[in-house]
Amino acid sequence: MKTIAIDAMGGENAPKAIVDAVLKAKPKLKDTKFVLFGDEEKINELIPAEQKDRIDVIATSEVIIDSDEPVKAIRRKKNSSMVVAANYVKSGKADALFSLGNTGALLACGIFIIGRIKGVERPALMPTLPSAKSEDGFNIIDVGANAQSKPEYLVQWAQMANFYAQKIRNIKNPTVALLNNGAEDDKGDALHQEAYKLLKATDLNFIGNAEGNDLMEGKADVIVTDGFTGNATLKAIEGTASVILRLLKDSLLNNGLRPKVGALLAKPGLTALKKRFDTARYGGAVLLGVNAPVVKTHGRSNIRPIYYTLLQIDKMLSQDLVGEYKKYFSESR
Amino acid sequence: MKTIAIDAMGGENAPKAIVDAVLKAKPKLKDTKFVLFGDEEKINELIPAEQKDRIDVIATSEVIIDSDEPVKAIRRKKNSSMVVAANYVKSGKADALFSLGNTGALLACGIFIIGRIKGVERPALMPTLPSAKSEDGFNIIDVGANAQSKPEYLVQWAQMANFYAQKIRNIKNPTVALLNNGAEDDKGDALHQEAYKLLKATDLNFIGNAEGNDLMEGKADVIVTDGFTGNATLKAIEGTASVILRLLKDSLLNNGLRPKVGALLAKPGLTALKKRFDTARYGGAVLLGVNAPVVKTHGRSNIRPIYYTLLQIDKMLSQDLVGEYKKYFSESR
Repeated sequence: MKTIAIDAMGGENAPKAIVDAVLKAKPKLKDTKFVLFGDEEKINELIPAEQKDRIDVIATSEVIIDSDEPVKAIRRKKNSSMVVAANYVKSGKADALFSLGNTGALLACGIFIIGRIKGVERPALMPTLPSAKSEDGFNIIDVGANAQSKPEYLVQWAQMANFYAQKIRNIKNPTVALLNNGAEDDKGDALHQEAYKLLKATDLNFIGNAEGNDLMEGKADVIVTDGFTGNATLKAIEGTASVILRLLKDSLLNNGLRPKVGALLAKPGLTALKKRFDTARYGGAVLLGVNAPVVKTHGRSNIRPIYYTLLQIDKMLSQDLVGEYKKYFSESR
Repeated sequence: MKTIAIDAMGGENAPKAIVDAVLKAKPKLKDTKFVLFGDEEKINELIPAEQKDRIDVIATSEVIIDSDEPVKAIRRKKNSSMVVAANYVKSGKADALFSLGNTGALLACGIFIIGRIKGVERPALMPTLPSAKSEDGFNIIDVGANAQSKPEYLVQWAQMANFYAQKIRNIKNPTVALLNNGAEDDKGDALHQEAYKLLKATDLNFIGNAEGNDLMEGKADVIVTDGFTGNATLKAIEGTASVILRLLKDSLLNNGLRPKVGALLAKPGLTALKKRFDTARYGGAVLLGVNAPVVKTHGRSNIRPIYYTLLQIDKMLSQDLVGEYKKYFSESR
């Protein structure tokens, strides 16, 4: 039996969307137990009596909010849903941690409570993003767990993401590229020049440098980058997509009847676009390099992305991704 | 009389689009001379006899192409349109350099031939990008002239971009923000933490950190960033916009008749969106910190963006932007 510890108080739609997603995932994940942390009464109300098997509820009295300073929050809010859930994983009672709450605090829970895998220099955060090339999208690591990076970290991140792409996304021989400021192999600052050399010396399917505009085109299955650049790039991609789609919607709705009718007629055509950008299917962003899968989904998520994240976590546990990492990094040292 | 040196051989539509744009701009810029460098015969054929006043053509025999290694190219292709034009500016015969060719080579021409302004540590490249907030868009500096940056550079770049926003874009008290990995004032790696402190101590209208998703929202008139992050971010924005708009077009055109009719009806509504993303009006990306305006426009540009870039360059000369920089950086040392 696998066990997932779930912070039921994180995100805009907590705890309802989270409980509903658990109820939806439960029949599909027959060998999995769900432990929900948070307001016991509220959570229990949402679970029908006949559904209480394989769902435990553990009462906590505090909630870490988005404006909390992450490291301080996990030190001071000892009885918060997120921290109690993290300690539950640390003690071995659960195998994975899932939250929709404060990203920084969740990373801190992963790094300081659940702890680094021996041999991993720095854990790193990795989402799956959509690409023009295929519905598989691509992974990008690190998108902000580390403000300061070293070349050796990037190589470990590429290796962890490579395993993820193979085992969870079923890509046989994932292509790996380094986010850099040009395509040529001598491009970049000292960090990226050195990372390039180290990546080239691995047995990864390293295809060289990628530039910012290559990402969404789907040039590689795995993009490795320092956490500072990765953070700015990820947010730039998200911000650009959000601004364009919002302006598009505004343009169609606020210019009289004709564009409105046009938009209505065009709708079936837009389904393909919508499907390509349906990132819910990918699940959440994973903190790789700690002793259990630690997964974050957008705070504004409704049931669907939470449901898919539960499937994603279950697959990581079934494939024993963390066990693979432990084996790899103990052997490679 | 102002004089603009123009590399007439750069870009996909050279020399025709370039000559046509000059012919279009000429009646508007009555106090400006245009010197075109390139294939003399081809260029002259494109200029009607009655239009030859204020247009000089200087014959060159080589062209730097996009795949040329920038620094090698400007050393070896001494008789290329770009290098001869740069030397023409250096000798004082022209006041600005404009090209649609190899960006790296143009930056090298600016830095190594035209030369740094005394007191400026490192020249930097600055485009104007569109934002959701206003048709004014925003400036971002540096987007890739420097792979390796220091905090002091960022402060100088912010100051140069601030002058540009005031004098060329007519923004009275431009807001300036630092691209960082979070909003809080202690965010970032050592470089960005130090840059934050230095920026806060200036008399700029510094509003703190911006994140990648704040850029296109138009959080600040000027975004300052190190050249590595700026390069990745700019390309990520361009790549995302291009992928979304392409998928949108494909979705509408390849899903039968209904979406096609819908798109046709929606067209007037899309004009607002199109206008907001019409970056041609902004002109080209400027290399700031060298002894003359050095301006690059996309290689695939047609007449319109080239025309607007000529207006932009003319305005930089009328406002004596480089003179202002020289004064400022000699006084501040």
